[in-house]
Amino acid sequence: MKTVDLLIIHGIVITMQGQGTGIVNDGAVAVQGSTIRAVGETAELRKEYDGHRVIDATDKVVMPGLIDCHSHSSLGIARGTAQDIDNWLYKGMFPIQANLDDDATQIGSLIEIAESVLNGTTTIGDYGDRSELVLQNHRKVGNRCVMTELIHEMPADIYRYDPMETFPFDPGVGEAKFAATRRMVQTWHGSGRITCMVGPQAANMCSLELLRELYEYARKEGLDIHIHVSQSHRENIQCEKRYGLRAIPFLEKNGLLGPQVLAAHISHAQPEEVRTMARHGCRMVLCSNCMALINGTVPPAAEYMEMGGVVGLGTDQAPGNNRNNMFLEMKVGDLLNKCKAASGTVFPAWQMLRLGTIESARALGMADQIGSLEVGKKADLIILDLLHPHMTPIILSPVRNIVPNLIYSADGREVETVIVDGQVIVDGGELTNLNLKDAIHHANEAGKRFSNRMESFEGLNDVPLAQWTKAGLY
Amino acid sequence: MKTVDLLIIHGIVITMQGQGTGIVNDGAVAVQGSTIRAVGETAELRKEYDGHRVIDATDKVVMPGLIDCHSHSSLGIARGTAQDIDNWLYKGMFPIQANLDDDATQIGSLIEIAESVLNGTTTIGDYGDRSELVLQNHRKVGNRCVMTELIHEMPADIYRYDPMETFPFDPGVGEAKFAATRRMVQTWHGSGRITCMVGPQAANMCSLELLRELYEYARKEGLDIHIHVSQSHRENIQCEKRYGLRAIPFLEKNGLLGPQVLAAHISHAQPEEVRTMARHGCRMVLCSNCMALINGTVPPAAEYMEMGGVVGLGTDQAPGNNRNNMFLEMKVGDLLNKCKAASGTVFPAWQMLRLGTIESARALGMADQIGSLEVGKKADLIILDLLHPHMTPIILSPVRNIVPNLIYSADGREVETVIVDGQVIVDGGELTNLNLKDAIHHANEAGKRFSNRMESFEGLNDVPLAQWTKAGLY
Repeated sequence: MKTVDLLIIHGIVITMQGQGTGIVNDGAVAVQGSTIRAVGETAELRKEYDGHRVIDATDKVVMPGLIDCHSHSSLGIARGTAQDIDNWLYKGMFPIQANLDDDATQIGSLIEIAESVLNGTTTIGDYGDRSELVLQNHRKVGNRCVMTELIHEMPADIYRYDPMETFPFDPGVGEAKFAATRRMVQTWHGSGRITCMVGPQAANMCSLELLRELYEYARKEGLDIHIHVSQSHRENIQCEKRYGLRAIPFLEKNGLLGPQVLAAHISHAQPEEVRTMARHGCRMVLCSNCMALINGTVPPAAEYMEMGGVVGLGTDQAPGNNRNNMFLEMKVGDLLNKCKAASGTVFPAWQMLRLGTIESARALGMADQIGSLEVGKKADLIILDLLHPHMTPIILSPVRNIVPNLIYSADGREVETVIVDGQVIVDGGELTNLNLKDAIHHANEAGKRFSNRMESFEGLNDVPLAQWTKAGLY
Repeated sequence: MKTVDLLIIHGIVITMQGQGTGIVNDGAVAVQGSTIRAVGETAELRKEYDGHRVIDATDKVVMPGLIDCHSHSSLGIARGTAQDIDNWLYKGMFPIQANLDDDATQIGSLIEIAESVLNGTTTIGDYGDRSELVLQNHRKVGNRCVMTELIHEMPADIYRYDPMETFPFDPGVGEAKFAATRRMVQTWHGSGRITCMVGPQAANMCSLELLRELYEYARKEGLDIHIHVSQSHRENIQCEKRYGLRAIPFLEKNGLLGPQVLAAHISHAQPEEVRTMARHGCRMVLCSNCMALINGTVPPAAEYMEMGGVVGLGTDQAPGNNRNNMFLEMKVGDLLNKCKAASGTVFPAWQMLRLGTIESARALGMADQIGSLEVGKKADLIILDLLHPHMTPIILSPVRNIVPNLIYSADGREVETVIVDGQVIVDGGELTNLNLKDAIHHANEAGKRFSNRMESFEGLNDVPLAQWTKAGLY
């Protein structure tokens, strides 16, 4: 009998091994240090293992932690301040974003990360400004993080420009953000639970010269590229005006597509362009809630998978989702795709659960370490309590309702325990490394300061949402 | 100074008065008995009122309880057992439903009602089998209920039929269910928080003779009609085969449309048929999650409102939603409609909040009593705690993020207090009239018995979900 650090028994264990969900009705997981030592039937594991800590997971689901490939926690403080309008980025997000400072960014980011982890996300692909500050939050909470600094060359008053016109690049911005990337990579890449990517924001948001520099830097460092691709009509129109090509043909022509590319959205691409992305082996991130909310788009995820492409999921940002909750990402993404296809059979629950776990691990290039419960993989897993009304009853046969209820019923409040690298970072539904009540208090104080800055910011005078607020609609 | 039964102060009070949301940043509500005595600024109400109970709603939202116009709590025990397939009703729901008995129906219904109320629903438009048993649950929990017995004449083995073919009507079924309606109406209509409607299931599910009898009965009793209308291709094809007319033209020709009709779905209607419904003053129920899940449809709600029709919201049933949560209904309904219109501007948050409250009250014909916080209306209201990460920060200006966060961020777990008829039925997030833990335990026991019955039921042999369960996908 071996005594492992943690032994979880009698759970409904969803391993995500194989081509389905690899579900075991009375399952167990043995964790030693940061890795999974054994996974299987409780009766079998019980013969070999005892645990320093034993969790009885009766009436609970044990499954791999969810993986969010694409979020912008640096925008967290602006939750709910931009939606329901045309030209969301230029007319909603940019004028609000202009009021962010270190304080608002860092505190808002902490709240988003807390939300993600409390709702079952163990790995966050975070992508934003002031990454070095944001990384402190990930290290504090204890989740796994793939961090990317957003690199662009947009002028500070970008919100003044016509979205359908080009703007003059500001090389100083690009240099500073590239420098921040280099510092971050040097200090943090590969340290603990942190890895880094290189993040040109989009084909239309930095010069071709900078794009080339960044790709070359990434190649030398052995890092992947995290980039928005064809995320709007605007992007294609600006690329056409600058280069005579839409975004994807422009990227292809310049050798900027390939298996090192993690491409968010691909939402405004023509079918042939989508095929180009898949042919080059780019990995796609589907951010369903966000793309629906900001412009009513359902990105071509089912199509991308049919073309052989890898698709992961992402929550994107709080001012246009407005959640960082992977359970809602799976449910809403599923329903939106069913409606796009006009069929209830698209993305059956088992497949969507793969997208939120093992397929997202593949999208981040980490499927050898996370995304399923397998011997030797990192012990990143979550335990969900099924004794909520909306997860009741538990039915195991002839139709087992566990996987369908995880996709169509769960909303994240079921998450009791979150384990990353074998360490318990949520226990009994509470973060172990953060005083959440204090963090929320600080975020509300920071929100007031942010609100005050916005009040005296001329760029917000003609924002529709401010007008609606005055009119008592919002 | 008058002392009322309950005084709520310092909340962000969303009254839903007027054409917007009628929001008050520092608001108060005074409740006396079952009705609202006063609503307005805290500073004003404090001059006039004190309370036997005073709730300080600082950092909380106070708003009308949500109104679910259309659900089938009698199917609650089958949560998560039917989805992701073609011909959901015939090949998923009917063979499973054939295994329901009194026990499974009543216990499953209680769990659904508990879910609804815990997530902020104060009025449920419940529509199903064994209504007299189901009503006991509503009375126990204490919510308001508009109860309808589903009346049809389908044979017991309806799951054996080709969905695109007609079936022989079984008048005995219709007689029994009509009799159950009459008993229910006589005993319960207008008693306490219960009212009743008359519920022919659909144009293709009972004979024209029975439809006429039911409408005539409803007219005499002064009751409304609750009916599914054009909910599937199947319905239109069956009506054409029987009567040479699609469902809506058939109903119109026979004088079965009018302002007394509460019509669920209208999802498979041609534009001219939708217009027919609106012209006759029928009220529409939009069940977004369910229609998306079972066949990838977004019903024409925005169109119906443009035609001047009234639209309320409904959660439909647990085996095809799979939630009875009005917050998710508002969020998902909003996003689906944005994608249908390919625009982020459709159903701005303030309008969707109206649909979940005052417009749903209009759909149920109860807007004079519920749906907004106004003096003289029933004291049906909910209090939500905003100190959750996903509702943080609270920003009041220049863009107030409260209403957007209620629609796009809230998932129901924020609900702390639910008040119906002035009585607190959820306090501190707990049902006051039901031991939830026991109810979930009983439901899981009933789920096992239901599972055993299904195991030996030949009609489930060729259900795809049973095959997927055996294959380890589900």
